[in-house]
Amino acid sequence: MNKSEFSSHLKMNNVKINDAFWSGIIETVRKSVIPYQYLALQDKIEGAEKSYCIENFKKAAAVCEKIKSGGRPEVYPVDKWHYDESNADKNAFHGWVFQDSDVYKWIEAVGYTLMHHPDSELENKAKGFIKLICSAQLENGYLDTLYIINDRSKIFTNLKDHHELYCFGHLALGAVSFYRATGDRKLFDAACRFADLICDIFGKDKTEGYPGHEIAETALIRLYEETGLEKYLETAKCFIDRRGEKPYYFDKERGVTTSGEDYRYNQAHIPVREQKEAVGHAVRGVYLYSAMADAAKIYCDDELFSACKSIWKNIAERKIYITGGIGATVHGEAFSFDYDLPNDLAYAETCASIGLVSFAREMSKIEINSDYADVAERALYNTILSAMAPDGKSFFYVNPLEVLPVASKSDARKAHIKPVRQKWFGCACCPPNLARLFSSLEEYIFTENDNTLFINQYIGAQVNCDKADITITSDYTNSGKISVFVDMKTPFKLALRIPGWCDHFKLSESYEIRNGYAFITICKSTEIDIQFEMKTKLIKCSNRVRANIGKAAVMRGPFVYCVEEADNGKNLHLLRLDKEPDFRFDNGMIFAKGIREREDDRLYAEYTAPEYEKCVIKFIPYYKWGNRGENEMSVYIRM
Amino acid sequence: MNKSEFSSHLKMNNVKINDAFWSGIIETVRKSVIPYQYLALQDKIEGAEKSYCIENFKKAAAVCEKIKSGGRPEVYPVDKWHYDESNADKNAFHGWVFQDSDVYKWIEAVGYTLMHHPDSELENKAKGFIKLICSAQLENGYLDTLYIINDRSKIFTNLKDHHELYCFGHLALGAVSFYRATGDRKLFDAACRFADLICDIFGKDKTEGYPGHEIAETALIRLYEETGLEKYLETAKCFIDRRGEKPYYFDKERGVTTSGEDYRYNQAHIPVREQKEAVGHAVRGVYLYSAMADAAKIYCDDELFSACKSIWKNIAERKIYITGGIGATVHGEAFSFDYDLPNDLAYAETCASIGLVSFAREMSKIEINSDYADVAERALYNTILSAMAPDGKSFFYVNPLEVLPVASKSDARKAHIKPVRQKWFGCACCPPNLARLFSSLEEYIFTENDNTLFINQYIGAQVNCDKADITITSDYTNSGKISVFVDMKTPFKLALRIPGWCDHFKLSESYEIRNGYAFITICKSTEIDIQFEMKTKLIKCSNRVRANIGKAAVMRGPFVYCVEEADNGKNLHLLRLDKEPDFRFDNGMIFAKGIREREDDRLYAEYTAPEYEKCVIKFIPYYKWGNRGENEMSVYIRM
Repeated sequence: MNKSEFSSHLKMNNVKINDAFWSGIIETVRKSVIPYQYLALQDKIEGAEKSYCIENFKKAAAVCEKIKSGGRPEVYPVDKWHYDESNADKNAFHGWVFQDSDVYKWIEAVGYTLMHHPDSELENKAKGFIKLICSAQLENGYLDTLYIINDRSKIFTNLKDHHELYCFGHLALGAVSFYRATGDRKLFDAACRFADLICDIFGKDKTEGYPGHEIAETALIRLYEETGLEKYLETAKCFIDRRGEKPYYFDKERGVTTSGEDYRYNQAHIPVREQKEAVGHAVRGVYLYSAMADAAKIYCDDELFSACKSIWKNIAERKIYITGGIGATVHGEAFSFDYDLPNDLAYAETCASIGLVSFAREMSKIEINSDYADVAERALYNTILSAMAPDGKSFFYVNPLEVLPVASKSDARKAHIKPVRQKWFGCACCPPNLARLFSSLEEYIFTENDNTLFINQYIGAQVNCDKADITITSDYTNSGKISVFVDMKTPFKLALRIPGWCDHFKLSESYEIRNGYAFITICKSTEIDIQFEMKTKLIKCSNRVRANIGKAAVMRGPFVYCVEEADNGKNLHLLRLDKEPDFRFDNGMIFAKGIREREDDRLYAEYTAPEYEKCVIKFIPYYKWGNRGENEMSVYIRM
Repeated sequence: MNKSEFSSHLKMNNVKINDAFWSGIIETVRKSVIPYQYLALQDKIEGAEKSYCIENFKKAAAVCEKIKSGGRPEVYPVDKWHYDESNADKNAFHGWVFQDSDVYKWIEAVGYTLMHHPDSELENKAKGFIKLICSAQLENGYLDTLYIINDRSKIFTNLKDHHELYCFGHLALGAVSFYRATGDRKLFDAACRFADLICDIFGKDKTEGYPGHEIAETALIRLYEETGLEKYLETAKCFIDRRGEKPYYFDKERGVTTSGEDYRYNQAHIPVREQKEAVGHAVRGVYLYSAMADAAKIYCDDELFSACKSIWKNIAERKIYITGGIGATVHGEAFSFDYDLPNDLAYAETCASIGLVSFAREMSKIEINSDYADVAERALYNTILSAMAPDGKSFFYVNPLEVLPVASKSDARKAHIKPVRQKWFGCACCPPNLARLFSSLEEYIFTENDNTLFINQYIGAQVNCDKADITITSDYTNSGKISVFVDMKTPFKLALRIPGWCDHFKLSESYEIRNGYAFITICKSTEIDIQFEMKTKLIKCSNRVRANIGKAAVMRGPFVYCVEEADNGKNLHLLRLDKEPDFRFDNGMIFAKGIREREDDRLYAEYTAPEYEKCVIKFIPYYKWGNRGENEMSVYIRM
């Protein structure tokens, strides 16, 4: 590791986004998504699946009250991942084992929002939830409604499958965000009390456990940064270091001896420093890898960073969809094997791409390499953006690259592929995750170290840091033009990422290219004009990806494009793009020359060359698909 | 229906196969498969999954003994489809709920074998099993080891999921075969006693039940034919007619009210006469359709036949693989939607193709149309033949059209796709089904009515019927030459199927073509020479089958060919066949001109035309795939 390359990301209070493309989306989150989710958490959205989230906290608070008054609360089973109304007592916990995290993620998003948009009504709503949450915390700091409601005696007995440490993680992240925004310590203190308990049980030289679903690692590091308490950092490191060590903790917990193969799902099959490949549940994976990178930087741990790099390469070079989706299989919502990236069976969970953006940021803070921000951009402008409807009221959990509505309905293999966004899922990890990412987008744009400020994403913003006050005006997504007004405080270097997709660019200042960034020496206040050439490009996928042989995809700038039935008729697989497609970009759409194979219903016949007719093929950005009702969609098109 | 077209198939005792291609396979069944299965049924094959079949009969016999002597047998749960050693008491039933049927199918195959190859040792082995089976029958005729061992009080309470009527069906078919071959009535009488009980409970005007897994319908018709007892036929008809009627019997049985949508799996969602499409579990489907055709002919039931024709067309024109496999999805081992025929996810269970051959035969007995025998041929020479290893000791249950071994191992979506044949499955429906089909192949070759003898399959054989003694010498699979020596007894018409794949043929006699058959008037003893032109043909699949767009398959005669890694190297998807492939047939293999796309590991890059190198592409018959260890295989190849 080269410490001189280390950097930190600028925090919310240093950055204010003002961007033609993104501000509207962020406003949608603030004005629509957050209020919508406020109701959803309370099961007040008609026709949406029930969350049970707030209901569970109310039940847990009642249990705490009973315990305080010397009563003996009921005991219910804690043997499932999901407790629906038909299989759980009405007084018992309902919903998924990780249901608590939904409100924590909502509070995290609210915190980010409040930083730039003080809103006492919203703040009070959050405080209402926080009061309820704190009243559901046990005396010793423990806070997980499933176990508090159903069986206090079984706390922390199933780290592998249950989500107490996961819920703690989101509690802490929500608490830090809300505390930073409002100065209100109530939830932050509650999170620290739970963290203290976790350190007492799982800290250095204590029980050798670690989370089945990672996120507590990152959360403990955030609490360490906020409080300076070493024990939080140490426990995070224990959670990372113990993972996959033999004998397996998950074996001990279950009273069995296994080969550990099943723990690939949890990235706990081998010690993290030996992990070279992204495996298992994709969201868990990127949450872990993100924490590993975070810890590698703090501890300047070469070995840990080396594992992170191997895993990163494995994702970026073998296991990522062109849209930035990761986790190719529905079985275990998991990474599949190298180059296995089927379009029509993709899982590509929204949360996994959100975690990937976080992993990319942590890596970019260790090493100057534009690949990290390139991959984050791919995920952000395609899979992640696509996952939320323009009105912020429906969402994709799964992000396929090819959709045939009849298959989604008739073929159980594709039951997870929804042709239109869904209102709210009972398993609602994605919508609140989108809310917290979009409302903290400020923290994904810039990184800095002593002498350099890096612009990783071209989002219009005002930046205030020790080096300068900077105003970025960006037309990145449209014309590729960006202006950077630098009001210098002290000389420094400004490093501008040259996007991986860009072959030609113009810069109004002299620069030096290194590791994908153009470095400009700033010695005075100045205005820098950047022009990235926005060419529509035809992209091919490695022919080791079997699904894409003979096909290509279309990109323009950071956007992947796709064809939809609404523009091109049914049977998109019959389309072929001309070898010289003469792309024309017009009003957000791309038009190209193509041919359409004539339909042929006869199942088997002697081969004759297909017949074609000329057609114009119309592409829209991938993130806009599925907004015109159920219809076919495909990212790749035959050549 | 046109009664003048009705025909019957010639029975075992009228036909003796003597064929260069098939005799060896039938001998393998007799000399290797049947002895192997004799051991497998008794769990005496090392390394093979346990069957528990005979073990269950022993346990059931002990229960019967106990009941007779006034004892009270134990009670165990009957709530599962499978009872393995870890979840069942050691004295309880083990294996699949339909485990009994394995020995019945074995006895059926033994019966067929004994007809042409008397073998007292084998006959005695079968009699040993029969004695055991009969000792496991309850006084009232009931015979199903799961319920006899585990819980007598729950007999016939779960027709939907359990297989008592299915096991009865195979018992009766085995009993008829063994009785016809040996004259020994013991098992036949036992089957009739069970049939009597079934008629008492489920017959006309009795309980409105019907089987969850069809086969009893066909079996009851066979018993009717053998005994002349109308009640057997009537009960078969009840089982067909009641299916899918509202209120659903399966609902009543379960004490619920459903939309019936789930009963598509059992073809019981709507009445059979309203069924136009092949749906649900494919094996169950074709067993039902076969019985429907059988009954339609007996009752001269136009409406029922019309449903059979619609379903037939749906399979033959929308839902069959080029290899004759049916049932495209592993989910429910079921038919998928129209034109959904993925190569690498195919289920295409061996038993489903065996059932299809039976459905085809029943249809061909109602209507003169060579399509039926064409489809049967497709299934027989490809999927079914492929399912058994040359030594008869390993089998495919699932018959994919594309295999990548790493995917079978790493991708749960393809876990059902085995790259090599398996020794013996716990769920061993396919191997005994292959044994009974191959050893009764005689009954699938010829049909006749008053004035015509139809040759549906070109398998060398001696035929004795009222019209003539006929000797067929066939080199059908190799040169396409067949000689038919007719020693006439009375003038008749000989109808020779012109295979669907054949564009040109020569016949040494004058003929008239009708419905795909060449009709020759036989007025004297004669020798007819037939030459079907054996051209290697390139076949295209409807472009509504998305998996095959831009691809083609190779056939020669009845055989579909495929490419294997052993002949063509890894990454078969990189091969492309030349538009003028100059096919060369040599020693069973086909050689063709082609190109291979150069490998390109970079996941995403600007599009450039692929680079190719010339190569010779080598094809082998599909039925020979998977005999050289684990390797890639593909039926379709890019054009």
